[in-house]
Amino acid sequence: MLESIQETAEKIRKLEIQGARNVAIAAIKTIEVLAKHTQAKNKADFLKELSKAKKTLFVTRETEPLMRNAIRWIMNRVDKNNSKKVKDIARTVSSSANQFLNNLERSREEIATIGANRIRNGSVIFTHCHSSTVTYMLQKAKQQGKIFEVICTETRPIFQGRKTAKEMLDLDLKTTMIVDSAARHFMNQADIVLVGSDAITSEGNVINKIGTSLIALAAHEARTPFYVVSELLKFDPATIHGDYEKIEERDSSEVWKDPPKKLIIRNPAFDVTRRDYIHGIICEEGIISPHSTMEVVRRKYPWVFE
Amino acid sequence: MLESIQETAEKIRKLEIQGARNVAIAAIKTIEVLAKHTQAKNKADFLKELSKAKKTLFVTRETEPLMRNAIRWIMNRVDKNNSKKVKDIARTVSSSANQFLNNLERSREEIATIGANRIRNGSVIFTHCHSSTVTYMLQKAKQQGKIFEVICTETRPIFQGRKTAKEMLDLDLKTTMIVDSAARHFMNQADIVLVGSDAITSEGNVINKIGTSLIALAAHEARTPFYVVSELLKFDPATIHGDYEKIEERDSSEVWKDPPKKLIIRNPAFDVTRRDYIHGIICEEGIISPHSTMEVVRRKYPWVFE
Amino acid sequence: MLESIQETAEKIRKLEIQGARNVAIAAIKTIEVLAKHTQAKNKADFLKELSKAKKTLFVTRETEPLMRNAIRWIMNRVDKNNSKKVKDIARTVSSSANQFLNNLERSREEIATIGANRIRNGSVIFTHCHSSTVTYMLQKAKQQGKIFEVICTETRPIFQGRKTAKEMLDLDLKTTMIVDSAARHFMNQADIVLVGSDAITSEGNVINKIGTSLIALAAHEARTPFYVVSELLKFDPATIHGDYEKIEERDSSEVWKDPPKKLIIRNPAFDVTRRDYIHGIICEEGIISPHSTMEVVRRKYPWVFE
Amino acid sequence: MLESIQETAEKIRKLEIQGARNVAIAAIKTIEVLAKHTQAKNKADFLKELSKAKKTLFVTRETEPLMRNAIRWIMNRVDKNNSKKVKDIARTVSSSANQFLNNLERSREEIATIGANRIRNGSVIFTHCHSSTVTYMLQKAKQQGKIFEVICTETRPIFQGRKTAKEMLDLDLKTTMIVDSAARHFMNQADIVLVGSDAITSEGNVINKIGTSLIALAAHEARTPFYVVSELLKFDPATIHGDYEKIEERDSSEVWKDPPKKLIIRNPAFDVTRRDYIHGIICEEGIISPHSTMEVVRRKYPWVFE
Amino acid sequence: MLESIQETAEKIRKLEIQGARNVAIAAIKTIEVLAKHTQAKNKADFLKELSKAKKTLFVTRETEPLMRNAIRWIMNRVDKNNSKKVKDIARTVSSSANQFLNNLERSREEIATIGANRIRNGSVIFTHCHSSTVTYMLQKAKQQGKIFEVICTETRPIFQGRKTAKEMLDLDLKTTMIVDSAARHFMNQADIVLVGSDAITSEGNVINKIGTSLIALAAHEARTPFYVVSELLKFDPATIHGDYEKIEERDSSEVWKDPPKKLIIRNPAFDVTRRDYIHGIICEEGIISPHSTMEVVRRKYPWVFE
Amino acid sequence: MLESIQETAEKIRKLEIQGARNVAIAAIKTIEVLAKHTQAKNKADFLKELSKAKKTLFVTRETEPLMRNAIRWIMNRVDKNNSKKVKDIARTVSSSANQFLNNLERSREEIATIGANRIRNGSVIFTHCHSSTVTYMLQKAKQQGKIFEVICTETRPIFQGRKTAKEMLDLDLKTTMIVDSAARHFMNQADIVLVGSDAITSEGNVINKIGTSLIALAAHEARTPFYVVSELLKFDPATIHGDYEKIEERDSSEVWKDPPKKLIIRNPAFDVTRRDYIHGIICEEGIISPHSTMEVVRRKYPWVFE
Repeated sequence: MLESIQETAEKIRKLEIQGARNVAIAAIKTIEVLAKHTQAKNKADFLKELSKAKKTLFVTRETEPLMRNAIRWIMNRVDKNNSKKVKDIARTVSSSANQFLNNLERSREEIATIGANRIRNGSVIFTHCHSSTVTYMLQKAKQQGKIFEVICTETRPIFQGRKTAKEMLDLDLKTTMIVDSAARHFMNQADIVLVGSDAITSEGNVINKIGTSLIALAAHEARTPFYVVSELLKFDPATIHGDYEKIEERDSSEVWKDPPKKLIIRNPAFDVTRRDYIHGIICEEGIISPHSTMEVVRRKYPWVFE
Repeated sequence: MLESIQETAEKIRKLEIQGARNVAIAAIKTIEVLAKHTQAKNKADFLKELSKAKKTLFVTRETEPLMRNAIRWIMNRVDKNNSKKVKDIARTVSSSANQFLNNLERSREEIATIGANRIRNGSVIFTHCHSSTVTYMLQKAKQQGKIFEVICTETRPIFQGRKTAKEMLDLDLKTTMIVDSAARHFMNQADIVLVGSDAITSEGNVINKIGTSLIALAAHEARTPFYVVSELLKFDPATIHGDYEKIEERDSSEVWKDPPKKLIIRNPAFDVTRRDYIHGIICEEGIISPHSTMEVVRRKYPWVFE
Repeated sequence: MLESIQETAEKIRKLEIQGARNVAIAAIKTIEVLAKHTQAKNKADFLKELSKAKKTLFVTRETEPLMRNAIRWIMNRVDKNNSKKVKDIARTVSSSANQFLNNLERSREEIATIGANRIRNGSVIFTHCHSSTVTYMLQKAKQQGKIFEVICTETRPIFQGRKTAKEMLDLDLKTTMIVDSAARHFMNQADIVLVGSDAITSEGNVINKIGTSLIALAAHEARTPFYVVSELLKFDPATIHGDYEKIEERDSSEVWKDPPKKLIIRNPAFDVTRRDYIHGIICEEGIISPHSTMEVVRRKYPWVFE
Repeated sequence: MLESIQETAEKIRKLEIQGARNVAIAAIKTIEVLAKHTQAKNKADFLKELSKAKKTLFVTRETEPLMRNAIRWIMNRVDKNNSKKVKDIARTVSSSANQFLNNLERSREEIATIGANRIRNGSVIFTHCHSSTVTYMLQKAKQQGKIFEVICTETRPIFQGRKTAKEMLDLDLKTTMIVDSAARHFMNQADIVLVGSDAITSEGNVINKIGTSLIALAAHEARTPFYVVSELLKFDPATIHGDYEKIEERDSSEVWKDPPKKLIIRNPAFDVTRRDYIHGIICEEGIISPHSTMEVVRRKYPWVFE
Repeated sequence: MLESIQETAEKIRKLEIQGARNVAIAAIKTIEVLAKHTQAKNKADFLKELSKAKKTLFVTRETEPLMRNAIRWIMNRVDKNNSKKVKDIARTVSSSANQFLNNLERSREEIATIGANRIRNGSVIFTHCHSSTVTYMLQKAKQQGKIFEVICTETRPIFQGRKTAKEMLDLDLKTTMIVDSAARHFMNQADIVLVGSDAITSEGNVINKIGTSLIALAAHEARTPFYVVSELLKFDPATIHGDYEKIEERDSSEVWKDPPKKLIIRNPAFDVTRRDYIHGIICEEGIISPHSTMEVVRRKYPWVFE
Repeated sequence: MLESIQETAEKIRKLEIQGARNVAIAAIKTIEVLAKHTQAKNKADFLKELSKAKKTLFVTRETEPLMRNAIRWIMNRVDKNNSKKVKDIARTVSSSANQFLNNLERSREEIATIGANRIRNGSVIFTHCHSSTVTYMLQKAKQQGKIFEVICTETRPIFQGRKTAKEMLDLDLKTTMIVDSAARHFMNQADIVLVGSDAITSEGNVINKIGTSLIALAAHEARTPFYVVSELLKFDPATIHGDYEKIEERDSSEVWKDPPKKLIIRNPAFDVTRRDYIHGIICEEGIISPHSTMEVVRRKYPWVFE
C-alpha cells in the first residue's frame, strides 16, 4: 500500500497538490489509507511501514510544517498506544487522523471568526499571494455584512494574486490589482495588511511567499497594521534546533521561459518576515504577539515538541 | 512642417520612442527640422509655430522633464535673440539644439566616469528597470577592468529588467535575475544599488520606475548605499511651484491581458523615492546630496528657472 | 435588590465613580450586596439575577476590563460550586468577591514595591494623566527616602494631570507641569516615563489616556525608558477574539463649551500604545515584556480565559 | 518721534500686536513714521535715531526674525545711501519699507499659489496652531474649487486652534477639532500636515508653536507628508553664529490660573522641529528642502548676511 | 570548613576565577566540599552553615546570576528534603550539585549543537569579548566541516578578544581582529553576530561585556542578525522585582595605569542590550525570542522563582 | 631645494608631523621655502619644481584634503599670475601661502566663537579622539565663563583621547574618560557630541577617526545632538568625481605588538559618518547642514573646483 503514499508524495512534489492545508490533508488521508489496508503481520512491520511513509512524505517539499506536524501527531498517538495488535494501531492512525482534520477545520473557523472581527466597515485591505485562510476569513466578514475593499498584488512569478482577485470578485468585493513593485505606492491607502503563512519559526518570524517581507517593511514605514493569518501548526519545530527554515528555490522557467544563456535566475519561493514587522498572528488561540508563538504552541500542542 | 512635430509627438505618446534621452533627442531633432524648413514669413509667425510645437510636445507624456527642459533651452535662446529675421532665429534653434545634444553627450560621459569610480572590484550591484545611463556607466567600469556582478529585477509589468540583463551579459558580467518581490531577500548580498531617474523634484525626491521606492526602503533597512544615476536636467521645474510630479498611469492590459470583469487594475508607471533614502545623485556635477539638487541646477542651468 | 446594581451601573456610566480600581471595587461590592440580600427561591433564579447584574454592569463603559474580570472571577467561582442551595452560592459570591479585593490590594502593594525599586535617586520622572497605581508607587519610593522629581502633563481635556501634580506636591516632590504638546520638548530631560493603563490587549498593546502613545513615541525617539504600571487584570480577553478595544468617545463640551456651529469635535478618551514602545509592564508578576502578557495572564489567572 | 517706536515696541511685547507678519508690518510702519517726522539736523543724528529704534524693536520678543530682517533690510538700504541729506535718507527709509511690504505681500501670494497646488481633491489636512500663511493658502485652494477637510488641534495653552477652526468653517470647510494629545490617534487619517513657522535656523530646523515637533514625529511615523509654510525671511541669521534660537517662555497663568503653591509650570511657546521630519518648506522660492534653506536665502536675500 | 568557602569567594572577587560558568562551578564545588566535611551536629546548624556560605558567595560579584541560580537550586533541594539527619541533607547537597553540573554540561552541548546549525558555510561571524559558550559552539561548527571566518574585537580594557582570537586560530579559522571602535566599519561584511551573556533580565534584555549594546545597534542598522548564545540560567530573578541588574564598575587602572590627576575614569564592565536588537537567544530550549525568556525559564526551571 | 620638500613629506608620512592643520601648515611652509630659495632660471623650470613638490606632498597620506587644498590654492594663484619672471611667481607663492595661513587662523577663531555659543551652561559634552579645533573651541567657551564637563573616549589604538583628557584637565574642566565601547552606555548622560573631521565628501558625509560613525549612531538613537567642528577646506574635491575617500589602513602593531601568527589585524584609521547622523557642521561659514556643504564650499572657495 506504500505505492499510494509514493503517489501522493509525487503529487505534492510536482505541485499537483498545493497549499499547506491541502498538502496536509492529502498526506493524512494517504496514511489513513495505508493503515486501513495494511497487510503487516505484526506491530513491528506496521511501524516500519508507517515510518517509511513518514520519511517519504517529509522529504517532498522543504517548507511544509503543517503536513509534518500532522504526521507527527499521528505518530505520537501511535507511540502512546501500547497494544500489540496491528488492528488497534491502525485504528489509532485512523482516529488521530480524523482528530487532526477536525482540529484543522475548527481552527479555520475560529481564525475566520476572530479575523473577521478585525475588519472595519469601509476599510481597505491589502493582501499578497493567495491564502485560503485569508480568503475564508474575508468571506466570513463579507457575510457579516461588512463593507470593505481589497488590493491584491499580482504575485510574480506565478500570479497567485489572480486567484485571490477572482475569489474577491466572486464575493462581490471592490477589488484592485497592482504589480508587486507598486506595494509602497499604494500602502498609504491601505488600512490593514493581511497575509497567510507557510511556516513560523521558534524566534517568531514568519516564512511566506516571496515579497511578504518587503510588504511588511513598507507597512511598517507607513504605520499600517500588518497581520499574519495562520494555523498555529504552521510552527516548524525544526527551527528550535537552529535549522534554518529552508527557502525552496523553484524552477527558473517560472520567471523567464527562454532566458539568454548564462543568465542566472534565482527564484526563491519564500522570504522571512521579522516578528517586529508583524502586529499579530491571527490564529486559533486568538490574536497573539508573534514573539510568544513558541510558548503558545507548547501550551496548546505539546506533542509537537516530543 | 508641423506634421513632423505631430508625428514625433505621436511616437512618443505611443512609446515607439521611449527612454528619457531618446525622447528628448527626438523632440529636439524634430524642432530643428521645423526650424530648417519653416516657411514662416516673419518672426511672429515663426514664433507661433515654435510655440505650437512646444505645446504639442509638452503634452505627450507626463513625466518627461528632460524633453521639456530641452525645449525650454531652445526657446530661451530664441527669446534672447533680438534679430527680426526668421533665418537668424532658425539658426539659433539649430545651434541651441546642437548645444543641448552636445551637453547631453558630455553629461553622459562625465556621469559614466564619475559613477565608474564608485564601482569597487568584486562588488555586487543591484539595479531595477533599465536605464541607459546606468548601463553606460557599468560598461565604462567594465572597460576599466573592474570585476563585478549584477543583480537585476525583472521589472513588471513590461520586463525592462530583461533588457538590462541582456546588456549586462553582453558585457560579459555575471548577471542574476530575480522577481521584483525578491528585492529584500537579496538586498543583504548587494554592495550598492544603482537606479536611473525619470524626474527630480525641487524637494530632492526622485521619480523613477514603479518599485524604486520599495527597493530604496529595503536598501535603507540593510545599510546598502543607494545611488541615483541621472542627468541634472531631469530636474522638473514645475515641482517648484507645488505641482505634483504627475504619475503616469498606463494601460491595465500590461498587467493582465484578460482580467475578470469589474477588476480594477492600477498601473502607475513610477513612484517617488524620498531624498532620505538616497545616498547621492551621480550627475554631471559630481556626486551630490539630493537635498541640494535645486541649488545645483540653479547654478549650472539658470535658464531652467526663467 | 437589582436596583442597587442599576444605581451603581448608573454612577459608573455618569463617571460619578471613576478610575479602573474604583469601578471594579464598586461593581464587586454591589454584587456582594445582591448576594447577601437575595430573595431568590432557588439556584436557577439566583443565577438569573447574577447574570442580569453582570450584563447591567458590563455595558456601563467600554474600556473597563478590570471590572469585567472581577465579575468573571465571581461567576467562575459560582459556576464551580455544585451546591444547589442559594445560601451556599451566595456565600461563594461573597468569598470570591473578597478574594478578588484582597488580590487587588496585594497586587497594588507588589506593583508599588517592584516599581519603587526602579526609581533611581536623583532621577526625573515623566508622567501623563492620573493613575492611582503610579502615584502609589511613587509614594512608596519617596517613603524609602529616594529623591526624585516629577514632570506631569496637564492632560487635556479634563486636566487629570492637575490631580497628579497636587498629589506629587503633597509628597513634597519637586513637580513641574507642562502642556501636553510640550512632551517632546522636555523628553530629553526625563530619565524614565511611567504611565498607567486602562486595558492591555492580547497583542501586548496598552490602551491608556489619549496622548499616551504620542509620549511613548517621543520617549522612543529619545531612548528614554517607557514603563506601564498596571495590574495584570487590566488584560482584556475580548481582544483575543479579534474585538478591537473600543475607544470611548466622550462629550465634545469637554473640549470646547461653546464651539462654533458645524465644528466637529472628536474627543476619544484613550489611544493605543504599541508594545514596541513599551520597555516593560510593571505588574504583580514583576516587570515583564508586554509581548508575553497574554501568556503570563494565562498562567496566573487561567479563569479569565474560561 | 521715538515715543511712537516705544509704543509699538510695547504693544509687541504685550502681544497686543502678534503674528510674525503683523509684528513685522507694525515695526516697519513705525520706523517709516519716525523717518517722515524726524527732526534730526544731520545725518549722524538721524542714524543715531534709527539705530536706537532698531535696538528698541529688536529686544521686544525673542523669536521674531521676520521683524528683525525687515529692519535689517531698511538699515542696509540706508547704509548704502551715500547722500548726506537727512531728507534723502528718510526717503530711502520710506522706499525700502515699502519694498519690504510689497515683497512680503508678493511672497504671501506666491506661497499661497504654490501651496494650493499641493492640495489634492478629497484630502484631509492636519494643522496645528494658527498661521495666517497656512489659512490664506487654504483659502486659495478652496477658491480654486478644491474639496478637502481640515483637522485642527486646539493648541493649548491659549487655544489658537480655535481661531483656525473658525476661519476654516468660514471657508465652509468640513472642520474637526481635537485635543493636542490626540494627534497620533488621528494621524493615519490625514493626507498631509501643514504648519507655519516662527523661525528657520541655519541648520534647516524650524521653530514653531510648542507641539509642532511632536506632530512632525507622529507624521514621520505614519509616513504622512509634513510641510512648513513660511516666508524665507523667517530665516534667523543669528543661528549661523551658533546662537540658539531662544525659546520664549511665557507666563504660567496661561497654563493654570490658580495652581497649587510650589508647582513649577514650564510654558515654552515654541519647540524645534528637526529638518529630517520636514518634507519641504513651501516658500516664495518654491517648495524647497529645508537642508538648503540657508543657501536659498543667501541667493535671494544676500543682505540678510551683511 | 567555611574557610574553603571564603577562599573561593575571595578568588571570585579577585577574578582569579572568572567566566560565568567557571564561577558557578567553583561555587558549587566549594559548597559540596562544605557538605562533605561538615561537622555540624544537627540539621539546624548545618542549615546555618549553608546559609552563611550562600551569603558569602552571593556578594562576591554583582553580575553572577548563574552562580546564584546554582546555589538557589541546591538550597531548593535542601529545603524540600524533610530528613532531619545532617548526612541526608549533605547527600542532597552533593547530588543536587551534581545534577546542576550535569545540566550545565548538557545545556552547553545542546547550545553548541543548536548554534552550530545556524552557521552557514562561507559566512563571516562577528563576535565581541570572550564567551566559552560561543567558542565551544564555533568549535562544534568547525568539526562538522563548516567553513567560516571570524572577526573579533580586541575588547578593551582587558583585551579578552585576544583570548577569543587565539582560540579561533587554534581551530584553524581565518581570524581578523579590529579595535572596538571599528565595529560599524566592518559590520556590513559580517553575516551574523554572536555574543555571550552575563545576565538576562525579566524584560528580556541582555547584560554582557561593555560594548555589546553598541555592536547590537550597528548590527540592527545594517540588518545583520544578532544572536545571544547563553544558558537560560543566566536569567536573573532579581530583575523581576524591579532591581536593576547592577553594572559592576571595575578599577580605573584597567583603562589607564598612570592617569593625570583629577581625571575621572569610568569603567563599567557591562552594558544592557535591548531585546529589540536581539534576533534570538540560542539556549538549551532552542532559539527563542528574548521577549519570552522569563516564561521559558518558568516552564523549564520553576524553582528559580520559588 | 626640493630636499626640504622631501624631508617634510617624509615627516608627514612617518607621522612626525600630524593633525590636519599641522600637516597643512608644514606643507605650505616648505613650499614657501622652495619658492624663496629656488634657483630655477625661468618660469617653466620653476613651475616644474612646484609641480614636483605638489606631487611629492600629495602622496604622503591618503586623507589630507586640507593640505591638498592649501597647495591647490597656491597653484591656483600661480596659474593666474601672467608674469614671466621667476621672482614674481615666487612672490605669489609666498603671498598666497600667507593668505592661506591667515585664512586658516581666521577660520579657527570664527569656528571657536560660533561653537562656543552652542555650549550651554551646565552641559555634558561627549567627544572622541583629539581635534585641536574642538579643544580650541572648548577653551574659548571656558574663557567665556561657561561651566560644563567633558566625557572623552580613550580612542584606541593610539589613545589620542588621553591627549584630549589632559588638555581638558588643563582647562580645569571636570573630565571623564571611558573606553570606546562604553559610548552607548554613557550617551544618555551627554547633552551634545562634538567631534572633528579629517575630510568632508561631496555627499556631505564626514570622514573622521575610526569609531566616530558608531558614536554618531548611538547619539542618533538617544536624540543627542551630534556636531562636527571643522574648517570647510577639509572638503575633498576628489569625492565629487566619485573617488572614494580612501580609508588609510595603519600598521597592525598599533593594535597588538606581538600577535599570534596568521592573525589578520585590520586597522583602518577612519570611518565614514553619514550626513543624516550629523546635526550640523560648525565651520567658518556658521553652523550649516552637511547636505549643503559642497554648495557652501563652491560659494566661499570656488578655486577648489577649478
